[in-house]
Amino acid sequence: MRDDGLTIDEQLSQLTRGCVDVVRLNELRSKLERAARTGKPLVVKVGFDPTAPDLHLGHTVLIRKMKHFQDLGHTVVYVVGAFTALIGDPTGRSKTRPPLTMDEIMRNAETYKAQISKLLDPAKTVTLFNSDWLEPLGSVGWIRLAAKYNVAQMLERREFKQRFEAGKPIAVHEFLYPLAQAYDSVHLKADVELGGTDQLFNLNVGRDIMPAFDLEPQIVMTTPLLEGLDGVEKMSKSLGNYVGVTESPSEMFGKLMSISDELMWKYYRLLTELPAEDVVQRERAVASGELHPKQAKVELATRVVGDFHGAEEAAHAAAAFERRFAKGEVDRSTLERREWSLPSEPRAFRQLLVGLKLAASGSEADQKLKQGAVKIDGRKVDGPFALQQDLLERDRDYVLEVGRRAYLLNVR
Amino acid sequence: MRDDGLTIDEQLSQLTRGCVDVVRLNELRSKLERAARTGKPLVVKVGFDPTAPDLHLGHTVLIRKMKHFQDLGHTVVYVVGAFTALIGDPTGRSKTRPPLTMDEIMRNAETYKAQISKLLDPAKTVTLFNSDWLEPLGSVGWIRLAAKYNVAQMLERREFKQRFEAGKPIAVHEFLYPLAQAYDSVHLKADVELGGTDQLFNLNVGRDIMPAFDLEPQIVMTTPLLEGLDGVEKMSKSLGNYVGVTESPSEMFGKLMSISDELMWKYYRLLTELPAEDVVQRERAVASGELHPKQAKVELATRVVGDFHGAEEAAHAAAAFERRFAKGEVDRSTLERREWSLPSEPRAFRQLLVGLKLAASGSEADQKLKQGAVKIDGRKVDGPFALQQDLLERDRDYVLEVGRRAYLLNVR
Repeated sequence: MRDDGLTIDEQLSQLTRGCVDVVRLNELRSKLERAARTGKPLVVKVGFDPTAPDLHLGHTVLIRKMKHFQDLGHTVVYVVGAFTALIGDPTGRSKTRPPLTMDEIMRNAETYKAQISKLLDPAKTVTLFNSDWLEPLGSVGWIRLAAKYNVAQMLERREFKQRFEAGKPIAVHEFLYPLAQAYDSVHLKADVELGGTDQLFNLNVGRDIMPAFDLEPQIVMTTPLLEGLDGVEKMSKSLGNYVGVTESPSEMFGKLMSISDELMWKYYRLLTELPAEDVVQRERAVASGELHPKQAKVELATRVVGDFHGAEEAAHAAAAFERRFAKGEVDRSTLERREWSLPSEPRAFRQLLVGLKLAASGSEADQKLKQGAVKIDGRKVDGPFALQQDLLERDRDYVLEVGRRAYLLNVR
Repeated sequence: MRDDGLTIDEQLSQLTRGCVDVVRLNELRSKLERAARTGKPLVVKVGFDPTAPDLHLGHTVLIRKMKHFQDLGHTVVYVVGAFTALIGDPTGRSKTRPPLTMDEIMRNAETYKAQISKLLDPAKTVTLFNSDWLEPLGSVGWIRLAAKYNVAQMLERREFKQRFEAGKPIAVHEFLYPLAQAYDSVHLKADVELGGTDQLFNLNVGRDIMPAFDLEPQIVMTTPLLEGLDGVEKMSKSLGNYVGVTESPSEMFGKLMSISDELMWKYYRLLTELPAEDVVQRERAVASGELHPKQAKVELATRVVGDFHGAEEAAHAAAAFERRFAKGEVDRSTLERREWSLPSEPRAFRQLLVGLKLAASGSEADQKLKQGAVKIDGRKVDGPFALQQDLLERDRDYVLEVGRRAYLLNVR
């Protein structure tokens, strides 16, 4: 492993930055000391569900934590949850969890890896499929595994507890899934497992059962769930409040410029590598009026876009954004293109915003329209009752602005 | 299948005689009707734990029920619980449940089969080892199986519920064992499963999950647990209140003659094929003083011994018993032989009774001695403080009587 010349205290501080839970810090210290002494890197495990391959900035909080370990020379293992994805929903109740084929899982994993590689060194990131050891575990292996954990411990998991108390069914196999994930740690002899705070229970199951397999318990570290652009809900594709890591520089830039000043500091801490003291310094400068919040936001957006598209593209997006808002100019060539089929019957403009996923819901669209945040070729769309047919013609391009984001709208 | 010329009602009456639970009677009727119509026999499943191969009369209550189905031409399948026996206690907490090898399981199953064959036709009894299908079920099969049942349903089992409420741990694999047994029924497409009343929950799990595998639910039928010779506890080897099916005719006879008059009627119903009305008739005759209870007990003992050793041996044992008690004569050649090494230091007689398993505990031995129920060569052993060295010499045979049972005691 690499010697960065950092003291153990400095390593600890870097690794735990922004974490919600660290179980346990003193054990992490011992492991880091041993790694430094023996030169043997730690095995750092992170699990991914291969059913939804699109990453957004919310996922990158965790990926950055992987990077911190990688930067210190440790081995980051990215475990694809192929075993359960191959099964799908065995109760057959959920239509959203059909079983995937191994081909689909491999494809999704490749997509993941390509997206992760914007932040992590792909040559250093080990990708493994847990079906490789969970399938051969077999009938007897599963019985022995299930013997390592208690029903009462399982029911301590908040989600199970709530369902149990509400009399809602929990199928027995749902108790086996945390054990599957735990066995991944046993198989890998993981030193550390990383996950979102919502995974704390599952990660601790791995920690709990490792001693029964004569292994040192893994350290569990969780990262916070990132709020979405609205600053309220968790960032999620289904809520529409997300920034995808494959989005274009201008789209990403515009979305990041739309967040509140308050949320900006959280994003600085979780989505950039800017040292904590520098974040605090900017925060103070804004509070005292020395720094305009928009300027701080431009820096944030430039840093984040730079991580995914490089510094040049980021500067380009920043300049285009400036021209558009400061000088009212729009460089059509930098805009994302969106296509829209004009309905033959009169329809409200709000439906276009929802249809193009520029608003998460009809009421969000109405709100944007009421605020005058929606423009067609620079002219405000007037309130929620505006009709598409009054504003648009077929076979023409328009500049559509929604808040600080702008698109090239191709109407057909 | 055989046509016995019995109506469905007569079949139902014979099959349900002495049962505690029948889930459900109307479905059993339909299955019997269909079997009669199509000529296709029912598959009747019975599970056995291969860890303890010694059968006693308590087990024969269930075996008789198997015989009733066999007599009507149905297929009785005896499922050896090899899968769990191979695993033993996976928590490693119980020293009494070490894993068995397949060789040991096969040997135990053979012993079982030899004992069962005294009552059942071995040529008609199918023996299967559930490891043959539970091992190949594999990781994915177990997940799918566990998805068919709920945690809350599992916790309805009395034993689980009590432990859960008392805060005593239930390991997750304990939820998988009832599912293993249930899957046996799925694999065999069982029409009926028989078991003791203490198995009702497990049998019903099989019934519950079969529809999820597109199978008709099995009928569950349970037989009562037989009281031991003491008339209080369930018959069990560890409590010492049992009659083993491989015991000698005189031992069996003596033990059966030792039961209370009240218990005798229960034994008549559960351990003989005497029609119910004939049992009632004898019961009335004893109550009215027409029949001496001892005479009724001799008939019971003769019937039971006859089932395992044949009518001739039974008559022989009955005659020897009569001579010994009615006329004080002991025919040494009919007695069970017991060997005893006389200790070199003075030791209480009670230790001999416990050491030869003629009393379950020291306090039971003391009680027998106080009652004057223990005799050496016809002389009562005087109270609990008698010493072995005062009554016995090395290299001699004695007739040792304990209650109504007599042994040839070889002292060395």
